Amino acid sequence: MTALLILNGPNLNLLGTRQPEIYGATTLSMIEAQCREKAAGAGIELSFAQSNHEGALVDAIQAARETQDGIILNAAAYTHTSVALRDAIAAIDVPVIELHLSNIHARESFRHRSRIAAVVVGQISGFGAAGYCLAMDAMLAHLAGS
Amino acid sequence: MTALLILNGPNLNLLGTRQPEIYGATTLSMIEAQCREKAAGAGIELSFAQSNHEGALVDAIQAARETQDGIILNAAAYTHTSVALRDAIAAIDVPVIELHLSNIHARESFRHRSRIAAVVVGQISGFGAAGYCLAMDAMLAHLAGS
Amino acid sequence: MTALLILNGPNLNLLGTRQPEIYGATTLSMIEAQCREKAAGAGIELSFAQSNHEGALVDAIQAARETQDGIILNAAAYTHTSVALRDAIAAIDVPVIELHLSNIHARESFRHRSRIAAVVVGQISGFGAAGYCLAMDAMLAHLAGS
Amino acid sequence: MTALLILNGPNLNLLGTRQPEIYGATTLSMIEAQCREKAAGAGIELSFAQSNHEGALVDAIQAARETQDGIILNAAAYTHTSVALRDAIAAIDVPVIELHLSNIHARESFRHRSRIAAVVVGQISGFGAAGYCLAMDAMLAHLAGS
Amino acid sequence: MTALLILNGPNLNLLGTRQPEIYGATTLSMIEAQCREKAAGAGIELSFAQSNHEGALVDAIQAARETQDGIILNAAAYTHTSVALRDAIAAIDVPVIELHLSNIHARESFRHRSRIAAVVVGQISGFGAAGYCLAMDAMLAHLAGS
Amino acid sequence: MTALLILNGPNLNLLGTRQPEIYGATTLSMIEAQCREKAAGAGIELSFAQSNHEGALVDAIQAARETQDGIILNAAAYTHTSVALRDAIAAIDVPVIELHLSNIHARESFRHRSRIAAVVVGQISGFGAAGYCLAMDAMLAHLAGS
Amino acid sequence: MTALLILNGPNLNLLGTRQPEIYGATTLSMIEAQCREKAAGAGIELSFAQSNHEGALVDAIQAARETQDGIILNAAAYTHTSVALRDAIAAIDVPVIELHLSNIHARESFRHRSRIAAVVVGQISGFGAAGYCLAMDAMLAHLAGS
Amino acid sequence: MTALLILNGPNLNLLGTRQPEIYGATTLSMIEAQCREKAAGAGIELSFAQSNHEGALVDAIQAARETQDGIILNAAAYTHTSVALRDAIAAIDVPVIELHLSNIHARESFRHRSRIAAVVVGQISGFGAAGYCLAMDAMLAHLAGS
Amino acid sequence: MTALLILNGPNLNLLGTRQPEIYGATTLSMIEAQCREKAAGAGIELSFAQSNHEGALVDAIQAARETQDGIILNAAAYTHTSVALRDAIAAIDVPVIELHLSNIHARESFRHRSRIAAVVVGQISGFGAAGYCLAMDAMLAHLAGS
Amino acid sequence: MTALLILNGPNLNLLGTRQPEIYGATTLSMIEAQCREKAAGAGIELSFAQSNHEGALVDAIQAARETQDGIILNAAAYTHTSVALRDAIAAIDVPVIELHLSNIHARESFRHRSRIAAVVVGQISGFGAAGYCLAMDAMLAHLAGS
Amino acid sequence: MTALLILNGPNLNLLGTRQPEIYGATTLSMIEAQCREKAAGAGIELSFAQSNHEGALVDAIQAARETQDGIILNAAAYTHTSVALRDAIAAIDVPVIELHLSNIHARESFRHRSRIAAVVVGQISGFGAAGYCLAMDAMLAHLAGS
Amino acid sequence: MTALLILNGPNLNLLGTRQPEIYGATTLSMIEAQCREKAAGAGIELSFAQSNHEGALVDAIQAARETQDGIILNAAAYTHTSVALRDAIAAIDVPVIELHLSNIHARESFRHRSRIAAVVVGQISGFGAAGYCLAMDAMLAHLAGS
Repeated sequence: MTALLILNGPNLNLLGTRQPEIYGATTLSMIEAQCREKAAGAGIELSFAQSNHEGALVDAIQAARETQDGIILNAAAYTHTSVALRDAIAAIDVPVIELHLSNIHARESFRHRSRIAAVVVGQISGFGAAGYCLAMDAMLAHLAGS
Repeated sequence: MTALLILNGPNLNLLGTRQPEIYGATTLSMIEAQCREKAAGAGIELSFAQSNHEGALVDAIQAARETQDGIILNAAAYTHTSVALRDAIAAIDVPVIELHLSNIHARESFRHRSRIAAVVVGQISGFGAAGYCLAMDAMLAHLAGS
Repeated sequence: MTALLILNGPNLNLLGTRQPEIYGATTLSMIEAQCREKAAGAGIELSFAQSNHEGALVDAIQAARETQDGIILNAAAYTHTSVALRDAIAAIDVPVIELHLSNIHARESFRHRSRIAAVVVGQISGFGAAGYCLAMDAMLAHLAGS
Repeated sequence: MTALLILNGPNLNLLGTRQPEIYGATTLSMIEAQCREKAAGAGIELSFAQSNHEGALVDAIQAARETQDGIILNAAAYTHTSVALRDAIAAIDVPVIELHLSNIHARESFRHRSRIAAVVVGQISGFGAAGYCLAMDAMLAHLAGS
Repeated sequence: MTALLILNGPNLNLLGTRQPEIYGATTLSMIEAQCREKAAGAGIELSFAQSNHEGALVDAIQAARETQDGIILNAAAYTHTSVALRDAIAAIDVPVIELHLSNIHARESFRHRSRIAAVVVGQISGFGAAGYCLAMDAMLAHLAGS
Repeated sequence: MTALLILNGPNLNLLGTRQPEIYGATTLSMIEAQCREKAAGAGIELSFAQSNHEGALVDAIQAARETQDGIILNAAAYTHTSVALRDAIAAIDVPVIELHLSNIHARESFRHRSRIAAVVVGQISGFGAAGYCLAMDAMLAHLAGS
Repeated sequence: MTALLILNGPNLNLLGTRQPEIYGATTLSMIEAQCREKAAGAGIELSFAQSNHEGALVDAIQAARETQDGIILNAAAYTHTSVALRDAIAAIDVPVIELHLSNIHARESFRHRSRIAAVVVGQISGFGAAGYCLAMDAMLAHLAGS
Repeated sequence: MTALLILNGPNLNLLGTRQPEIYGATTLSMIEAQCREKAAGAGIELSFAQSNHEGALVDAIQAARETQDGIILNAAAYTHTSVALRDAIAAIDVPVIELHLSNIHARESFRHRSRIAAVVVGQISGFGAAGYCLAMDAMLAHLAGS
Repeated sequence: MTALLILNGPNLNLLGTRQPEIYGATTLSMIEAQCREKAAGAGIELSFAQSNHEGALVDAIQAARETQDGIILNAAAYTHTSVALRDAIAAIDVPVIELHLSNIHARESFRHRSRIAAVVVGQISGFGAAGYCLAMDAMLAHLAGS
Repeated sequence: MTALLILNGPNLNLLGTRQPEIYGATTLSMIEAQCREKAAGAGIELSFAQSNHEGALVDAIQAARETQDGIILNAAAYTHTSVALRDAIAAIDVPVIELHLSNIHARESFRHRSRIAAVVVGQISGFGAAGYCLAMDAMLAHLAGS
Repeated sequence: MTALLILNGPNLNLLGTRQPEIYGATTLSMIEAQCREKAAGAGIELSFAQSNHEGALVDAIQAARETQDGIILNAAAYTHTSVALRDAIAAIDVPVIELHLSNIHARESFRHRSRIAAVVVGQISGFGAAGYCLAMDAMLAHLAGS
Repeated sequence: MTALLILNGPNLNLLGTRQPEIYGATTLSMIEAQCREKAAGAGIELSFAQSNHEGALVDAIQAARETQDGIILNAAAYTHTSVALRDAIAAIDVPVIELHLSNIHARESFRHRSRIAAVVVGQISGFGAAGYCLAMDAMLAHLAGS
């Protein structure tokens, strides 16, 4: 079994109600369900979490160090401001994939810079809820190749 | 009744003791008392809160979504660094007014940029404790007009 | 009696006809009327003026030095380009409040910088015509406190 | 059948021989083979091309306008310099996904800016050869959803 | 007795496991032990704490206001992003020394800027675990001189 | 009849005497004469004015709102500094064409930025006195097409 | 007879189908026809070409050196990125006029900079298809005056 | 006789009352008197003027073209913002000396840039009222040498 | 025998006719002749090519991978804009020397940045046609030393 | 008697031979002679020195601390690069006037920034050799006024 | 015995007389005495030097290569401007500690950048004269650990 | 006979011991020997010098004015910081060639800018010790051609 953590950052708990023209109408529970379905068929032991607190996300990444094979991180707003998340990712050996629902490179310029991109395996952005399954596949491919 | 949340960010709990030459001698309780007095006379159901935690402020803004008619936010230091607050404000339909005790545009240059200004109704800065009452009036005027 | 000057900068004479989606449908005369009504009830001797000429605004601020207790200045476009207005404000002892109909911090980036913000008491922006009354209250509070 | 064009930019013909520590040891033919295998099983009519000429890539994107349902574009070096590719993408109605073998956001700063990101559906970077299959899945998901 | 708080920021709990080529192999408990030993011999009442939460660090600095004579702050990642920490330091009368294990001025450029340097007594960086004892000496010297 | 205003900014009254190597030897009266001749043959009711005062140019643009079908504006030095002119142009429904005698994009870098370009129909620069007739043709074409 | 080359850059072959809200509905053939009609009446021997290849445009400009009296260049996307075009223009004695269908100064900021503006006679932008005739007139005026 | 114009910009009419810690206690009339005294002894026919209007200063510089041998210009705030003044100076053959009461290079950074410095003979700043006499001597020396 | 490719970029085919005050009067054929003469005496098998097409230069560099011992590249305008050339050079094992006729560091600021300098052996600029022989000597010295 | 030091920086010993179109034909000895003549008539005890060494200039400024009433410093090239000179000036109580032969604000942009301007009394630039006498007068006026 | 060189840069010879509000009242001889006392008790053979000449400091660092175990360098103003010092430090194997009396990160922004920080062991700033002893301890700890 | 000065800047005396991975193992004496050998065979009267002092290098360049036909200058670190060297070069008529052992354009970004490049004949960088002979050839070619 491959243990994966899907970790979601601030305001993603509002998904589906928040700016649907940007983020779509799917809620975070729907995404979780879809991820669990895929996990079940792919031999993945899935953990799924969300927090609005930068420190809590740092704690979660640190904790994953001994329990997870990979992390899929949608850091949302903290993507652009958090050096603490960057350092947490760099401090553990677990590979991290950076995920964004929207195409951050096509939005406001302050969203073009990712503080964490330099320490992750890769980045997927712009595919909405479908990005979560793509990221799971990407992680499996990465783990298979490493 | 109009339900308003006045939300205060980091270090505002020290008000009155902290750098009085910048922030004045009034404490946050005195400000709360003054706001409650005004609220009583103006048919406002007032909630008043403070936190040093960015995540807690995000939580509070999200929670206000279903319980408040407006938010007056003195985000203090997070004004200049928090994309998470910006996204929280943009994610809810409740109007937000940005408030600052000091005239942030007359201080250090890093205080000139507000991360949240682009998603609020308007901004009031530089009037000390009196700014809270001005912001309540501004919110009432805004709600009356919208 | 408190003597206040409300001074309006370039293009504000077109208010109500100009880009109503940004500035609203209220004309400058309507605003003046509303201010005069408030002034009448608050013991304020109100002067109200507008000019498209930077030099004329500088002249008016200088002249206020000996006749006014406070100035509310909506410098409009000159907010972003005029060092002369800044120097005029700094050269007199009369307190000045900076006022904007729209939320300048949410518009084009060149409108985020105010040349005069560093020398005024405070700034109010984003509340449309209602901002004028807020600014009058803010000035009264400021004068009471100083 | 879904018609997809996978279009590769400058120097990708050297893949497998060029800087394997960055781009891996897989050649472009191996990638093409792997894509054709996936296409065969997924009802995709696949076109696969490469050019070192910016103008030829523009021509290919224009030509895809009437023959393809989607384009997966690994623009390589032209990602960072070509406004012509951006305009070509914007000029057609066919959705384009931006693909990179390496994590461009973790490399030299001039590779952080993508000239085309603002006009594509989304971006996938950092997963090496596996990124091609992920992009094909992403395109199918996108076409299913639009 | 001199009461000192040594406060450690995000990811420092991983010390010794995290990027030893940058931060060395000493753990935070080892550092605490070494500091307590020095404190015992120098008449220092030592408090030692760590948190991954910016808000918790702000709380701790505020609390130190009435209980500590000095603070040694290794703010780690928050050094570069937190205006809230800066404001907390400026809001209290207790002197603060900024400490870094690595030489932050020799690393990535975003680590060259310290948000808190302008409000601390001084800065020590680059001496690894030995920096903690140096900082304690520095604080004693500062308190003796002030 | 089409009513056109040709409005000239600061120092253009010196044309012909001022730096002929940049601006040519033609005087403003000669240009006016040439424009009037063209207007006569093209059913254009021409107004032609010049001022060194930014405020006067703003006044003239505002006044044109009810009397002109189009404005050709050679704002000269104010092109690069005046937000007030920009706002005046944006505030009226009359189309404006931006005209320059010299090729401003080939001169000092501060002349490359036009404050008004974002709100005009189009820009013609570098053709000397001949630019006035080109601008008149351009305006007729624009009015015919709109 | 005056020999003129009208040279069109990348994606202009899609004119009329591409983003009509920006570029209008006229096709490049319609523009060519209109130019040929004007040329016929004005003693102009017209060449009209388009290419998506930067190198081909450089070749064409070089070739014009011995066969043309003037060049009207709509370099489209290469306007903003091509030093090679700039050097080609500077290397020949034939005057070049820079033409743009849209008002490039009112669009994305990367379109405000023209790499070729410093070496052309003048620039016309924002008048759509009508700009071609204006540019022909401008060239005739320029040739008459030089 | 040498005809000199001393031209003063915005807010200099307030001299002596305005921020004496920066500009000193001498009034503009006192300076004029002192200049007239020096002029009388040095064969200088002196004109002395002040305006808060940028356009009026441009007019005055233009008018000096035929009546003055030299201009001493204290452009005050317009020094930093006015391209129109720069163009006026460049448009005439009369030499201009730039004068500042305070040392502009030691004040706010926006006062370090002079828009007019590139077209004047030289600059004198920081010597208060004494600068006027120095500038008159400098002009006489310049005229003697040219 | 040492196999060397001398590769020339855009507009160098015009050498001798183009801006002789910058590039001298020598033509590219004269340079080729001079290089062939030197090659004959130094045991060098010389290839000499020129193209105005960025893609063709990329192709040529790639092809040199298996046939050349060294490349002397005068990339002309593409020096400053082409990431594709940089990637081609980095993708092959053949050493490349960057050559410029003029001293690019003494010209317009956009010519100071070389996109390829980071991946070449060294750079020679400013010696006109003589630079080709210097570069051949430099390559021989480099090959002898490596 | 007033003791003045006139201190000249690098390359000023070449005056009269070096770029006379910028610096004039007067040699430094001629300037010294002229200064000594003026000093004789004005009760000034003059010291006059030159060095190409930054450290020697720092030494000279330090030495002046106890022997001079004022320093006139033409720091030449070191004006733009030397923090050491700035610190030396700030470290002594003797007033310093900054002098430049040419108008540094009209030359290359790197000459617009003076590292020492923030710590001197005032600046005189652009009047050639005549500037030395002006600076002596300025110093006398300054000393009289302080 | 450990051989240490304490090397002091420009203007530090004025210590105690120069800006005591920034640098304190202790003279450099007092500091030297204090360092010698500490050295005597710690088995350190101390060399102590100062120069205002950048070249002399480079010479001293080079000379230390064969005679010293460590260097404590207070480069003062040259910290911010000298690449020569940086290269000298990088060229020797002797470890260097960067020392500043004042907290350079809390002063003018040009003092925030250290040209030498990237090649030293660590940096200590802000502790006045006490910093010298801290730096000696830091060097001993560093030498013990390396 | 041609008189050439080869002038070497700071830290080049350490060549061969200093960072051999960047600068190679050849010492400066070995380079001098190799240059003298070449000079002997080419009718060159060679002077060869080195200094760590910027002022001494300025002195040497000035002295060369009357004794040398050309200067080859490896200014090392001062390349990037010295305006004084630039002015010395510009002040003499002797041609100067700029030489660097390493490819400065491939190193830290602060080494990409040369303060002297704008006033030299040309630049050679990246060929190690071999660059000295190349520079001698380049100078001979330059002198022959001028």
